[in-house]
Amino acid sequence: MNTSTIPERLTAIRNFMETNKLDAFIIPSTDAHLSEYPPNMWESRKWISGFTGSAGTAVVTKDKAGVWTDSRYFLQAATELSGTGFDLFKMGQADTPEMTAWIIEQVGKGGTVGIDGLVYAASDAKALKTRLDAKELKLETSLDPFSEAWENRPEIPQNKVFLLPDEVTGESTKSKIERINAELDKLDADGLIAVTLDAVAWIFNIRGSDVDFNPVAVAYGYVSKKESVLFVDAEKLDDETKSILLKQGVKIDDYEQVFNYVANLPKGSSICVTGNKINYKLYQTIPESCKIIDVPSPVDLMKAVKNETELKGFRNAMLKDGVALVKFFMWLEKAVPKGEVTEVTVGEKLIEYRSQQDLFVGESFSTISGYAGNGAVIHYRAQPETCLTVEPKGLLLVDSGGQYKDGTTDITRTVAVGKLSKQMKEDYTNVLKGHINIATAIYPEGTRGSQLDILARKALWDNCQTYWHGTGHGIGHFLNVHEGPQNIRLEENPTLLKIGMVTSNEPGLYRASEYGIRIENLIVTQEYKKTDNFGTFFDFETITLCPIDTKPIVKKLLTKKEIKWLNNYHEMVYNKLKKHLSKTEKEWLKEKTKPL
Amino acid sequence: MNTSTIPERLTAIRNFMETNKLDAFIIPSTDAHLSEYPPNMWESRKWISGFTGSAGTAVVTKDKAGVWTDSRYFLQAATELSGTGFDLFKMGQADTPEMTAWIIEQVGKGGTVGIDGLVYAASDAKALKTRLDAKELKLETSLDPFSEAWENRPEIPQNKVFLLPDEVTGESTKSKIERINAELDKLDADGLIAVTLDAVAWIFNIRGSDVDFNPVAVAYGYVSKKESVLFVDAEKLDDETKSILLKQGVKIDDYEQVFNYVANLPKGSSICVTGNKINYKLYQTIPESCKIIDVPSPVDLMKAVKNETELKGFRNAMLKDGVALVKFFMWLEKAVPKGEVTEVTVGEKLIEYRSQQDLFVGESFSTISGYAGNGAVIHYRAQPETCLTVEPKGLLLVDSGGQYKDGTTDITRTVAVGKLSKQMKEDYTNVLKGHINIATAIYPEGTRGSQLDILARKALWDNCQTYWHGTGHGIGHFLNVHEGPQNIRLEENPTLLKIGMVTSNEPGLYRASEYGIRIENLIVTQEYKKTDNFGTFFDFETITLCPIDTKPIVKKLLTKKEIKWLNNYHEMVYNKLKKHLSKTEKEWLKEKTKPL
Repeated sequence: MNTSTIPERLTAIRNFMETNKLDAFIIPSTDAHLSEYPPNMWESRKWISGFTGSAGTAVVTKDKAGVWTDSRYFLQAATELSGTGFDLFKMGQADTPEMTAWIIEQVGKGGTVGIDGLVYAASDAKALKTRLDAKELKLETSLDPFSEAWENRPEIPQNKVFLLPDEVTGESTKSKIERINAELDKLDADGLIAVTLDAVAWIFNIRGSDVDFNPVAVAYGYVSKKESVLFVDAEKLDDETKSILLKQGVKIDDYEQVFNYVANLPKGSSICVTGNKINYKLYQTIPESCKIIDVPSPVDLMKAVKNETELKGFRNAMLKDGVALVKFFMWLEKAVPKGEVTEVTVGEKLIEYRSQQDLFVGESFSTISGYAGNGAVIHYRAQPETCLTVEPKGLLLVDSGGQYKDGTTDITRTVAVGKLSKQMKEDYTNVLKGHINIATAIYPEGTRGSQLDILARKALWDNCQTYWHGTGHGIGHFLNVHEGPQNIRLEENPTLLKIGMVTSNEPGLYRASEYGIRIENLIVTQEYKKTDNFGTFFDFETITLCPIDTKPIVKKLLTKKEIKWLNNYHEMVYNKLKKHLSKTEKEWLKEKTKPL
Repeated sequence: MNTSTIPERLTAIRNFMETNKLDAFIIPSTDAHLSEYPPNMWESRKWISGFTGSAGTAVVTKDKAGVWTDSRYFLQAATELSGTGFDLFKMGQADTPEMTAWIIEQVGKGGTVGIDGLVYAASDAKALKTRLDAKELKLETSLDPFSEAWENRPEIPQNKVFLLPDEVTGESTKSKIERINAELDKLDADGLIAVTLDAVAWIFNIRGSDVDFNPVAVAYGYVSKKESVLFVDAEKLDDETKSILLKQGVKIDDYEQVFNYVANLPKGSSICVTGNKINYKLYQTIPESCKIIDVPSPVDLMKAVKNETELKGFRNAMLKDGVALVKFFMWLEKAVPKGEVTEVTVGEKLIEYRSQQDLFVGESFSTISGYAGNGAVIHYRAQPETCLTVEPKGLLLVDSGGQYKDGTTDITRTVAVGKLSKQMKEDYTNVLKGHINIATAIYPEGTRGSQLDILARKALWDNCQTYWHGTGHGIGHFLNVHEGPQNIRLEENPTLLKIGMVTSNEPGLYRASEYGIRIENLIVTQEYKKTDNFGTFFDFETITLCPIDTKPIVKKLLTKKEIKWLNNYHEMVYNKLKKHLSKTEKEWLKEKTKPL
């Protein structure tokens, strides 16, 4: 049958559901590895509904269909879903039914709900099952309608995997495996199943290009004292890579063999998994005789604490990113008055300048370039047909980042492209105060990011303002731009900030249809050099190197300490970048970094 | 047998254990109502070990005995336990065995551990059972060795219960029961068992004097749509009280009848309890046919949100407390140079001045009066034999409070009784900065106390200093001086701050053997009067009325905003108290509250 339109696809999945006696089917946005960005073959939710946003879940019943998504995507989803047969369910609004409750109501007692356990987090599937059980509905988890219905479905990408040498990672796979085994000892666990692609990449020091923006390869891993296995399609590895991995004590098996392997884990062994980071199908494959130890991933915590070599790589990537950004903002300053700049050309120019830098691999995410009111759309993605031209007035928000083979960057600057209102300036200054408050925080060992979050918001809260996103996320070393387990958010997160963690510092303020402001640098947790008699204290080192626009600053709103931080930061930016710049660039940067 | 000495008591309990085939017995510090301050009859841990601190657990095995307590009590416990046969286990120290692990090791597989389920929180007992089960030890929960071993054990107090009129509580019992039932509806629960004495007191608008410092009566409660019951010994109620309760729809039954009543709850009903606020014996009495809904207490949350009448009472109590404190600090100022003041007389004088006030009932806790190094002992309690004389130099910390029939107070002031060191002044100023930072906080609806905690610590953290206690606790309305569920602490607590909650604001700093500093006022969450387009914001009203000593302040460390707050606070204190003071007192207060 033809499945070129969404209604045809809906018919195809409903036929599949009828054949398999399913009353509803849930299609999440993730993949077998619980990725934020899945490879194309797993973009089933996009294929079935036409909705292209990164977060959202589709549900199909016999006579209804819907997509649940959050406020970031309301406008986009409304446009994309129009006429498809899918209704939009706006999450977080009072009159929007909660998805599972809606399914239960539609399907009714005795009905059957389907999910593909391969692309569903075990913890989510278990929670769903509990809800359905309570209302006497069945859950079927072993069927993938898209393997039949989706004509010309993409394959799992077969891109080559490459190894990162110890000079880049700072630690061999062998050493990482030993440290993981030591963590498993503490948990009384015999082995660990790694499912998320960045965890697998980190353990085995491999990188790939199977996924947009994230330099990862589709693979699973298993680590134990007895043996450690990388499950990846053999043709992705050349002989040298295989031999190096073998020398590190790593066995290599086919990607699909992970299910066989896990099904045959030694009787009575204790297996460490992370419920929201393993797909339900693999989770169910663990033999009943095994004890499942479901804990926050010890690998993620180890990966988050960067070693000296990784930090050196980060700092080097920052130098290159800084140079590219100087060139970009110089261009922007000249081009805007000529009417040459659109939100889309901003993104293109950033790629152009970053591409000139050594070891550049690609963007670390799709640039957010939001002019005027578009700056207030937090996950805005400019499209050539609809994007705005940047006029010489107001604020332009640019959030972008690069993947370099020695580090990952993520930076936001908001710049005055012309005349600003008083409100814009005050808002900008208060966001900057928050940014500086985080950058200068001193905190005792044992502090969680959630404790620091208010420092970024205090100047805004004092004016009855806030922003509804996190203040900071972890960031991988030449890996995913978003990684856990630490963060700086309103919401509680029990992870302690540790020396060597790299986190973003990105407070913002958004006035719908008017403008958005965000100022983002990356910061590294380090030991603070002073002490008293109250234990060890930490502070942050800011490693991003790019001037912060001083034109929007209302100086009298800043404290002396804040002004001092800004001037010191700018002095550092200038001193670190100057030797990599041309004379004109240096002069431009000197002007941009002159003391306030 | 004679049980006048600790070794004799140990022998008695070991005989009991042998008769009942127990290998270990655990004696916690709480009672059947999980009280912070238990009535004397339940002070078994104190009786068996001789250790009089408020927190600590005793364990007796066939040949060993120990008390586990925290750092607040290390010195005191070491003295009190010396020669008793009990070893001191210092909790939180690296080489101290964890209590349950120690018991498991001592008793070994197949052994039996005893607790009295009546005085053990259900959640703790269940956690203990899980640990013991895993190592194949049995848990026996139905025996009370003290009913036999403890000669002349006190009875449950039989003090009269009195009712608070609606003019004091602001809400009738009938209305409270209706609101509780509405909350139970949301939880799909049919009834609620109230065990903690402050919850019972709040629901039924009763007060008593069965417990030191807390104006509560020993009683249980049950609330449901069908009927609500107060379980209390009949002789505690006079006929008028009974008849008023009856008119509010309350049945009265004997205290001990709660077990019968719970055992006969209707088949299939859903019962709301709070695992750490119900004793294990009563929990186990709930019929198996009932569904247990174990959630944070909805009553505690309702109780924490004070109504306008309660707040009026609080403000009135603050006026009276303020007058007593002015008299006290005037006396102190004159008496110290004469050498007349000891840490103990401080407490006596406070009682004397508070007793002169209308509706005064008693202290809300035992005054902490710590001079010099004793101020650094957080739960210091001065004893006549060992207390220090307050000399005219350094700092004196006084933390005290009163129970008035219209409200409860809790206040700490640290005052310069003579010359101070530079360090003392800087520390004091930084503690004050933290206090002001909380007092002036503005925060969006939906904020948790744990998010605000850092505001109290920031000035200290900036100097690598901190304090290891919470910043704020909830406080009852003519009820317990410590109540939940909200607080302001380093540790996460999911409770949101709500309009009408009364919380303490008490940052501190402690230098062992040198001095302690703490500044404490009570604050009420209220709606903030300004807005922007980012939702509703809250702030605090400070209701405690007493000057903050300005002598130790290093003015240049305070911001203009901080100085403004202090001056405004002092102006308010003077204006509210002046009409209740004599001419000399007024002059004294004018001087103490003059602008910085």
